Amino acid sequence: MSLLVLGTVALDHIKTPSGSHDELLGGSAAHFSMSARLFTDVHLVAIIGADFPKKHIQFLQRKKIALDSLVEGKGKTFRWKGEYKQGDMNIALTLATELGVLAGFDPRVAEHQRKISNVFLANIDPDAQIGLLRMMRRPRFVGLDSMNLWIEHKSKSLKNLMKQVNLFVLNDGEARMLSGEKNLIKAAKRLRKMGPELIVVKKGEHGVLFYSDKFMFSFPAYPVEEVVDPTGAGDTFAGGLMGYLSKVNKVNEKNLRRAVIYATTLASFNVEGFGMAKTAGLTMTKVNRRMKDLIKFMAV
Amino acid sequence: MSLLVLGTVALDHIKTPSGSHDELLGGSAAHFSMSARLFTDVHLVAIIGADFPKKHIQFLQRKKIALDSLVEGKGKTFRWKGEYKQGDMNIALTLATELGVLAGFDPRVAEHQRKISNVFLANIDPDAQIGLLRMMRRPRFVGLDSMNLWIEHKSKSLKNLMKQVNLFVLNDGEARMLSGEKNLIKAAKRLRKMGPELIVVKKGEHGVLFYSDKFMFSFPAYPVEEVVDPTGAGDTFAGGLMGYLSKVNKVNEKNLRRAVIYATTLASFNVEGFGMAKTAGLTMTKVNRRMKDLIKFMAV
Repeated sequence: MSLLVLGTVALDHIKTPSGSHDELLGGSAAHFSMSARLFTDVHLVAIIGADFPKKHIQFLQRKKIALDSLVEGKGKTFRWKGEYKQGDMNIALTLATELGVLAGFDPRVAEHQRKISNVFLANIDPDAQIGLLRMMRRPRFVGLDSMNLWIEHKSKSLKNLMKQVNLFVLNDGEARMLSGEKNLIKAAKRLRKMGPELIVVKKGEHGVLFYSDKFMFSFPAYPVEEVVDPTGAGDTFAGGLMGYLSKVNKVNEKNLRRAVIYATTLASFNVEGFGMAKTAGLTMTKVNRRMKDLIKFMAV
Repeated sequence: MSLLVLGTVALDHIKTPSGSHDELLGGSAAHFSMSARLFTDVHLVAIIGADFPKKHIQFLQRKKIALDSLVEGKGKTFRWKGEYKQGDMNIALTLATELGVLAGFDPRVAEHQRKISNVFLANIDPDAQIGLLRMMRRPRFVGLDSMNLWIEHKSKSLKNLMKQVNLFVLNDGEARMLSGEKNLIKAAKRLRKMGPELIVVKKGEHGVLFYSDKFMFSFPAYPVEEVVDPTGAGDTFAGGLMGYLSKVNKVNEKNLRRAVIYATTLASFNVEGFGMAKTAGLTMTKVNRRMKDLIKFMAV
């Protein structure tokens, strides 16, 4: 089944111990799509500025990502400038953010895309996420991502939104911040009570914890020795998760475990290159090969 | 096959958010033994003072731990006073250490125990660990644990020791400190080059990473919601690991994976009670039940 994602499309300026790159295609919805496209057809909802390079549009089109609801606004494309320091590759230091067209962005969905049954609200202002959700016609399955900024400054909108989604993906720091619980299992339980029946806590190099009332599980991360650029790893993870669930079109324990394994596998590729250098060239053959290695790595 | 362990036997004074307890039986060798005894016969090498309570001796005897090489020195028993704060249960704050008889302890092993083929050097001064190893007659398999104190102050002895052991168990902070590598896989590789062919990096609530030249694996921790007292969790982990390997008497990938699962299971019991409150009452039936839950938790 099809999958629609709302989020950002950005131009990233990234510095890591491996080097630095400017004007990279990035943003939560772009990274998400690059991963989810491997499983199903992906419809991207986002805004770009008039300065957005044509080559990036063509690139997304070549990857068969539906751009019917990618609108061009008046102003500049959203830009993010960040740095990762040696030994702390889990933490992105934001050097500059230029919102550009993102300020006051009110997402629009093309009429024929409003019946899409799987929806992911990638990281963006919760008010934009709520707006998108209002536009959709009774989606079957809705996933949500967020960030510390919204937890701090738009907690009311975010909590309202949490009551309307099935799955919530967030990292360990965000889970602790939003729940007020240090123990991650307690934190996940508390988040579940706030609305979403499925909670996915990403722990970076430590893997992932999944919580639902009926079952829990935890997987390690794929062992990556050279993390080149972690930007978009969480979005790539979410893309694999939602992409697989949309493809199999049935949310049960078996499929959720498999979806999280795929998500983990995809995120491991993402961190091995700048921007989408590694994920853009992926095929299911490559993904399945690494997934087999991961399964071996974590086998009892 | 039998298993001999050198380490500390201590009287612990512990404060955690769950309460505080005095004069608890503790120490690396004691916690290790309480776990390893479930798999094989355990021979404890340590020193106590004249003030050591008889009830603790009787308790160890009831648990069938061989005390032939537990000597009584002149002076007081080693005491450790520590605290864990809410939200940071991974970090023990040492409030006081009274070495007592531990100062200048030169371990002695009873003649009939010197042929024991499995040896574990639990956390204690590396010079005592080297002394013990010299006394043994060609052990088949030797495991080693240490701590930040020795990495900082006795790094030469520790590095010398690493060349003489098969397996090295340490936590993530220690692995990073000793190897100078932030990435844990790189850290494990570096440690392997320093001597031990098998490296086990414990990551607390994030589980464990195993490294050898031929294979690697990673398991999550058992999901414990209420951590009461983490003291001795690492020693309990090592006891399960070495206990199982000694029992099966064959070190191969299958047995190592199983040994790490047992180790993880045992450590999860340890943290649920003060001192040995939970591990003392364990039977293999209880352990196997929780191990099955853990395997289910991490199943693909």
